[in-house]
Amino acid sequence: MGKTIEATFRVRYAETDASGVVYHANYIIWFEHGRGEWFWQQGRDYHRDVELRGYNWPVTELSSRYVAPARYGDLVTVKTRLKEMRSREFTLEYEIFNAETKQLLCTGWTKHMNLDANWHPVKIPEDIRAMMMV
Amino acid sequence: MGKTIEATFRVRYAETDASGVVYHANYIIWFEHGRGEWFWQQGRDYHRDVELRGYNWPVTELSSRYVAPARYGDLVTVKTRLKEMRSREFTLEYEIFNAETKQLLCTGWTKHMNLDANWHPVKIPEDIRAMMMV
Amino acid sequence: MGKTIEATFRVRYAETDASGVVYHANYIIWFEHGRGEWFWQQGRDYHRDVELRGYNWPVTELSSRYVAPARYGDLVTVKTRLKEMRSREFTLEYEIFNAETKQLLCTGWTKHMNLDANWHPVKIPEDIRAMMMV
Amino acid sequence: MGKTIEATFRVRYAETDASGVVYHANYIIWFEHGRGEWFWQQGRDYHRDVELRGYNWPVTELSSRYVAPARYGDLVTVKTRLKEMRSREFTLEYEIFNAETKQLLCTGWTKHMNLDANWHPVKIPEDIRAMMMV
Repeated sequence: MGKTIEATFRVRYAETDASGVVYHANYIIWFEHGRGEWFWQQGRDYHRDVELRGYNWPVTELSSRYVAPARYGDLVTVKTRLKEMRSREFTLEYEIFNAETKQLLCTGWTKHMNLDANWHPVKIPEDIRAMMMV
Repeated sequence: MGKTIEATFRVRYAETDASGVVYHANYIIWFEHGRGEWFWQQGRDYHRDVELRGYNWPVTELSSRYVAPARYGDLVTVKTRLKEMRSREFTLEYEIFNAETKQLLCTGWTKHMNLDANWHPVKIPEDIRAMMMV
Repeated sequence: MGKTIEATFRVRYAETDASGVVYHANYIIWFEHGRGEWFWQQGRDYHRDVELRGYNWPVTELSSRYVAPARYGDLVTVKTRLKEMRSREFTLEYEIFNAETKQLLCTGWTKHMNLDANWHPVKIPEDIRAMMMV
Repeated sequence: MGKTIEATFRVRYAETDASGVVYHANYIIWFEHGRGEWFWQQGRDYHRDVELRGYNWPVTELSSRYVAPARYGDLVTVKTRLKEMRSREFTLEYEIFNAETKQLLCTGWTKHMNLDANWHPVKIPEDIRAMMMV
């Protein structure tokens, strides 16, 4: 649903581990990096449009599958796309590639719940919903 | 399969995020913390028994579901258990609790592939397999 | 000044990097781990005694010196001690050892400023100051 | 000495903490980010030019001073410059700014030692030294 947004950056040394390649949990942080760009590159802003409205969109479920490793200094691209939109939750999906070889490295998705200021699940307001579907 | 191993530790401030609770990717690191204890507390050692034998067990797939948040200073317990053992791969599963309230915070699993020094999938040697099943 | 508090834990795989040893910035997180224990083991609680009183103690300056590397699975001990207490700021110092070999790995210090809810530097209240000096 | 290299990127949510701003140890990772760009933007490559030659340049000492906080989504710029070059060690210095307001956020430096494959300090080869001084 909607556009696929791309973000490209270099692997930091901090993101590698003693096996010589990127530590698996860091791809989950890269999903978040892609998610941020999915907001910004389409004129949305998570802090302004969600947090300052009194909402919070924690991850309630996630999944990732690792295909090939990334190494220090590699340029990687995260592609982010809205997969499903429901009344109180939505799912974004991600594909991470080596930006130079185009090798697929990792795929995954994150499910997010719309919580109010008391951390109760509530319906996503219509205007925010519309903003997400653009 | 086999014993469930527990590891308990306090949440670091570094593990929280601007929403006031623990950032979701850190639970994936806590799975790794539980996995390490699952080795050590049963007399196994990932570096000695796996890496020095020329193998590498990267995560090839993972999943996690978030039930309730952890906060700075909370004592949390990770319970780790072998879920499935196949010829070249195996799956560990995890439950994370607040150690004081016993509230379930997160569940998940990681699948690992046995790779040789050239990063090719190979059969897990019989003695390592036996060590894992204890 | 006051007691030296010890905290011991195992190195996580997530904390290593592609050079095979612990990434340098993670020792700064271990300083924070030691700082937390310096609070808790003496009956203090940063969240309850500082944040809920409307204060915030960000790090304003830090220094660390690396002597020997830590590796995955090593048991490390952080020793934390109050070095200096001034009206609006204080300094804690740290020594990190390999808990088994007693080899010194890293030393350092962090300086903290007492900020109010508007992030302005203010005098540390007398009771909090007394609590810190115990 | 030499050119000052700039790198600009957005703050990740993962880099914030429960106080609402970026966790202090992450600026140390941003120093590393700047250091990588200091290599790449001048045609150098740490992995190819240092690691594959059998050397390793761990941080042996670092210092940082925090002036103002960064927040989620802020664009930050790291400026990196060679401060001192000696026979077996060198120092890089860093300034981190908010890329939009130009507010200085953090300054610091890292000292690096040239170690051989056995982790012994050795003289930096002349050609590598020349490459660094460009």
